[in-house]
Amino acid sequence: MNDSPRSIRLLAFATCAALAASCGEGSPASAGASSIGGDARTIIAERNLNEADVSAALSTYTPTGRHDEYYTFASGGHAGNIIVIGVPSMRILKYIAVFTPEPWQGYGYGDESGDLLKAGSRAGNLITWADQHHPALSESGGEYDGRWLFIGDKANPRMAVIDLRDFMTKQIVTSELLQSDHGAAFVTPDTDYVIETSQYPAPLGGKYAPIESYDAEYRGAMVFWKFDKQKGRIIPEQSFAIELPPYMQDLADAGKRVSDGWVFCNSINTERAWGGTMEGKPSLESGSTQNDMDYLHCIPWKKAEQVAAAGKTETIAGMRTIRLQTAIDEGLLFLVPEPKSPHGVDITPDGEDIVVGGKLDTHCTVYSATKIKDLAEQKKFAGRDPYGVPVLDFKQSIRGQCEIGLGPLHTQFDGQGNAYTSVFIESVVAKWSLKDLKLIEKIDSHFNIGHLCAAEGDTVSPDGKYLLAMNKWALDRFAPVGPLLPQNFQLVGLAGQKMTRLYDMPLPLGEPHYAQMIKADKLKPIEVYTPIGTNPFHEGVDPNAVTAGKERIERKDDGVHVWMTAVRSHFTPDIVRVKEGDVVHLHVTNVEQAHDATHGLAIGSHNVNLSLEPGKHCNVTFTAKRAGVYPFYCTEVCSALHLEMAGYLLVEPR
Amino acid sequence: MNDSPRSIRLLAFATCAALAASCGEGSPASAGASSIGGDARTIIAERNLNEADVSAALSTYTPTGRHDEYYTFASGGHAGNIIVIGVPSMRILKYIAVFTPEPWQGYGYGDESGDLLKAGSRAGNLITWADQHHPALSESGGEYDGRWLFIGDKANPRMAVIDLRDFMTKQIVTSELLQSDHGAAFVTPDTDYVIETSQYPAPLGGKYAPIESYDAEYRGAMVFWKFDKQKGRIIPEQSFAIELPPYMQDLADAGKRVSDGWVFCNSINTERAWGGTMEGKPSLESGSTQNDMDYLHCIPWKKAEQVAAAGKTETIAGMRTIRLQTAIDEGLLFLVPEPKSPHGVDITPDGEDIVVGGKLDTHCTVYSATKIKDLAEQKKFAGRDPYGVPVLDFKQSIRGQCEIGLGPLHTQFDGQGNAYTSVFIESVVAKWSLKDLKLIEKIDSHFNIGHLCAAEGDTVSPDGKYLLAMNKWALDRFAPVGPLLPQNFQLVGLAGQKMTRLYDMPLPLGEPHYAQMIKADKLKPIEVYTPIGTNPFHEGVDPNAVTAGKERIERKDDGVHVWMTAVRSHFTPDIVRVKEGDVVHLHVTNVEQAHDATHGLAIGSHNVNLSLEPGKHCNVTFTAKRAGVYPFYCTEVCSALHLEMAGYLLVEPR
Repeated sequence: MNDSPRSIRLLAFATCAALAASCGEGSPASAGASSIGGDARTIIAERNLNEADVSAALSTYTPTGRHDEYYTFASGGHAGNIIVIGVPSMRILKYIAVFTPEPWQGYGYGDESGDLLKAGSRAGNLITWADQHHPALSESGGEYDGRWLFIGDKANPRMAVIDLRDFMTKQIVTSELLQSDHGAAFVTPDTDYVIETSQYPAPLGGKYAPIESYDAEYRGAMVFWKFDKQKGRIIPEQSFAIELPPYMQDLADAGKRVSDGWVFCNSINTERAWGGTMEGKPSLESGSTQNDMDYLHCIPWKKAEQVAAAGKTETIAGMRTIRLQTAIDEGLLFLVPEPKSPHGVDITPDGEDIVVGGKLDTHCTVYSATKIKDLAEQKKFAGRDPYGVPVLDFKQSIRGQCEIGLGPLHTQFDGQGNAYTSVFIESVVAKWSLKDLKLIEKIDSHFNIGHLCAAEGDTVSPDGKYLLAMNKWALDRFAPVGPLLPQNFQLVGLAGQKMTRLYDMPLPLGEPHYAQMIKADKLKPIEVYTPIGTNPFHEGVDPNAVTAGKERIERKDDGVHVWMTAVRSHFTPDIVRVKEGDVVHLHVTNVEQAHDATHGLAIGSHNVNLSLEPGKHCNVTFTAKRAGVYPFYCTEVCSALHLEMAGYLLVEPR
Repeated sequence: MNDSPRSIRLLAFATCAALAASCGEGSPASAGASSIGGDARTIIAERNLNEADVSAALSTYTPTGRHDEYYTFASGGHAGNIIVIGVPSMRILKYIAVFTPEPWQGYGYGDESGDLLKAGSRAGNLITWADQHHPALSESGGEYDGRWLFIGDKANPRMAVIDLRDFMTKQIVTSELLQSDHGAAFVTPDTDYVIETSQYPAPLGGKYAPIESYDAEYRGAMVFWKFDKQKGRIIPEQSFAIELPPYMQDLADAGKRVSDGWVFCNSINTERAWGGTMEGKPSLESGSTQNDMDYLHCIPWKKAEQVAAAGKTETIAGMRTIRLQTAIDEGLLFLVPEPKSPHGVDITPDGEDIVVGGKLDTHCTVYSATKIKDLAEQKKFAGRDPYGVPVLDFKQSIRGQCEIGLGPLHTQFDGQGNAYTSVFIESVVAKWSLKDLKLIEKIDSHFNIGHLCAAEGDTVSPDGKYLLAMNKWALDRFAPVGPLLPQNFQLVGLAGQKMTRLYDMPLPLGEPHYAQMIKADKLKPIEVYTPIGTNPFHEGVDPNAVTAGKERIERKDDGVHVWMTAVRSHFTPDIVRVKEGDVVHLHVTNVEQAHDATHGLAIGSHNVNLSLEPGKHCNVTFTAKRAGVYPFYCTEVCSALHLEMAGYLLVEPR
């Protein structure tokens, strides 16, 4: 904050200018100068705001009707959804349902979204939640293109594809190859592949093996999900995986520019501890932190793609897998020591530096992509790991280290050659220079800082205006809400000479791990579904879409089919007569195209709720188990006669 | 906004004072005056803020670590949860899972919360969502007491009890008496009862009757759920209901002070239309709006309580029900005409006035509780409805009407004798005087305004500082998020001479209908569960709670039982060996008591996630269907070695 005499004099002048201009309430500020006046002083006194508060308030408040400059897409953690946040206002704009059913969006309460969730079943179980960690925006040429979003599930390894035209999840894929993930989702610079890497090793393909055979039978793997940008879908049969040693692979990042074609991935527990405290062994937390160094994994994915294309794979649980020995033989995997138990591996915008946060260290280690590639190509190996994977020399692979503080976790970048690292144990954001690896400045985060998210921070051209510090557990920041604490996103301004804290934002649902921030004007969401009858999960008009006048009820072999329309303020038909035990197939089209003509359809006591945005078609199947009279009605307040937009499902006894 | 020369001179003076005081960054403002300075002017210019924006920003921005003054509890609409919002910052502090499973809170992913949801099953179906409308805070002497919160489900009529010590849902009850509700939840002034009233008439008790017998067989009902404040639970067997004519009963409000002991409830569709458009009948929206007047229902519930206690009830679907004829005979139900299709019925703080918003009218009608009671007691009836229910004379029942604008919907009050009514079609908030029933002022709401929520607005002593306008469908207010639009809460300041718009808040999930705002200092949430092993659903230590050193795995007749502890940063046991097909009973205690020692427990691919706040015990039962190796791990980032807080579920083949 600049509180120099000059700036204050300027402000005093500004208030006089305001007086001269006689600006009325609500009038736009002339050159901004006229707008401090009126009752501002009283408010500041009453609310006991200091100068930093005033600046922060003015920097983040977004007046009625004005749109935020950036979208942040944050994982919802184990809430299983994506959080869309406007920056700088830090208002939550939407929760996108992904792995967890969500009735407002009708997600998981109709046929198609139900099928989508079923596609993510694991080990014979329908999974209705996820532990989401790292969202990834689709990229073109290393820039976010605002078209798609990907998110993985650590607990039940899966990958979801979200469409940023309608903010809806369109696909969930899973492979039994893995039993957990963490290094997911990360995309290659043109979104050819979405990367998902296991965390906790397990026998590949869902097999059983005793824990005592951990070294021999347990493995990690990195999956390259092939993404078809035209179709907007992952193509499982064109995807492939690389088997990895049974270390706990952690975060990853895809190379760009200089390092394009490579992917880099941290690991922890190269000790291969697996716990067993009740069987006389050290706990995992202890056993996994014995060594001073773990291994950075370096993988030339473009070369791996060729190896997979050449058929040098084994299909495990449906996934074309490059076995570990093949990966070694073909030069697809190189390890470099890294200070123990790292977390973030983050590649600079130019693709040259690979910054690793040493979670139990005080440094960030800056690896050189060029050096690593050279050592790998020249096969200058310092040794081999127990599985025969070549290990590169630490000192020959790095450009240097920057002394940061206790617990460097994750690093983001601006466009001016600076890096920003979250320092978990010290609870600060550290700004440092990439050029000379020198610390520049620190700013406090209030508690247990996790990842950082900078504006366009994972692209080849970060914006450097805003940074989110994603803190855990807002102990005392907000009015209390019981034992389960909200997380806290702290917005930090990067535009000035110094970092400034702009906003504390509670996270009311879920525990976000990571986020990406994109310029708002890159997104082009649709307003209505066109043409009428569009099924968003199929893209195109649903075969069962119905137009006004064509509504009908027919009994068929597979049950009673109801073709229904919704329009302000009635459903047609509004009386549906079936018999006890009937399977009912409801096909509903919202035949409106006005932007504000969304309806919902709830069927009482049958666990059905559909969201019917303008032009959308939904199908839902349910069994009328019990005779009775069940109202159905519109669940979105659609007009003054919304309450009257209702009907009856009459279930006659047999 | 006051932009008089004097105030601007004061501000100019203030900035000079700031200069003199040389306040540094972050120092508290001396008398608030010193805090406009520094780079504020630059920010205002860059962000093009006007005077109203500046005032609003300063009025709502809540600096780091400072708590909001009020909590707002808003229904999550058909998302099935409760939204907790801090006022004036309008930050969402928490989503409380109620009727919809939510994995971050472990709600619906463990035994006890699963049983809680199952208790809300309807017509043989497990219901995993709700359409929530009107939350009600518990009251003592007509004041919010900050202890409990109630919310109903319109689609699958149920009532939930939420504990404001830990912000967790503790009970869900349902009665098959009703097939929908809307006039729910409303509490009596000492929370003796929680009121739930049907909306769409149906045969009572879940029976079937053809729609053609609507007049004879379909009925409404008002349920009085008995609440035990000591136990914090609804006691279904002490609850009772009153049968009502087959009108569509709408919102309700319990009397207070002058009107204590009464409840008032609007209705629509006294025409008893039921649609049937495909069968040649008028649509419900048309058929239900033929008459000029509908009926305000007036019910002396304390008298009804005595009638129920005297056994003059019939038990229908387990609910003691006062039949309609008994209600008529015992003087428990009186109707008064009200302008057609009303929505809100809102009782003034003194309990004397009953304000009805005439949704298709331009007036608010102000009924007098005293007049209604007198007419009822003296049996001065103007007539009877088709069911023999006495009807009071409209003119003799009212104190007057206030001309408001097109579509008055819902009314709140301040402590100064003013009423605030949302005007749906005109999209304004209208302030008017209760004393002389004259309009004072209007302020625009941006679009389709619904309910209002004033600070402590439903109590006997409203605070009159803030008002929320709960608008539908923020067409253009926020950065777009696809066809499904967020709702918009607009915060209006009531402290000044004129109403001022302070904040536009998008609702990212759900469609809230109503909210209540309570002084934050009335709530006393707990920070940890004490003693260790507390099961929040049972209140008290769980029989299966386990202490450190007592962890064990035992095979019993009903499956494998695992008694496990969680502590930073390991689970004990960390290796769990079972056989394919085993039923596994996991009993987990978080044995920590530090405020920030929350853990989670996810079991990969088995749809299990528990939230283990400090001291909490959880039980979960699942079947290990398929042989394999499944990692389990902590889902809340609990320390630098959180990733290492993991173990394996080993499922051996049979």
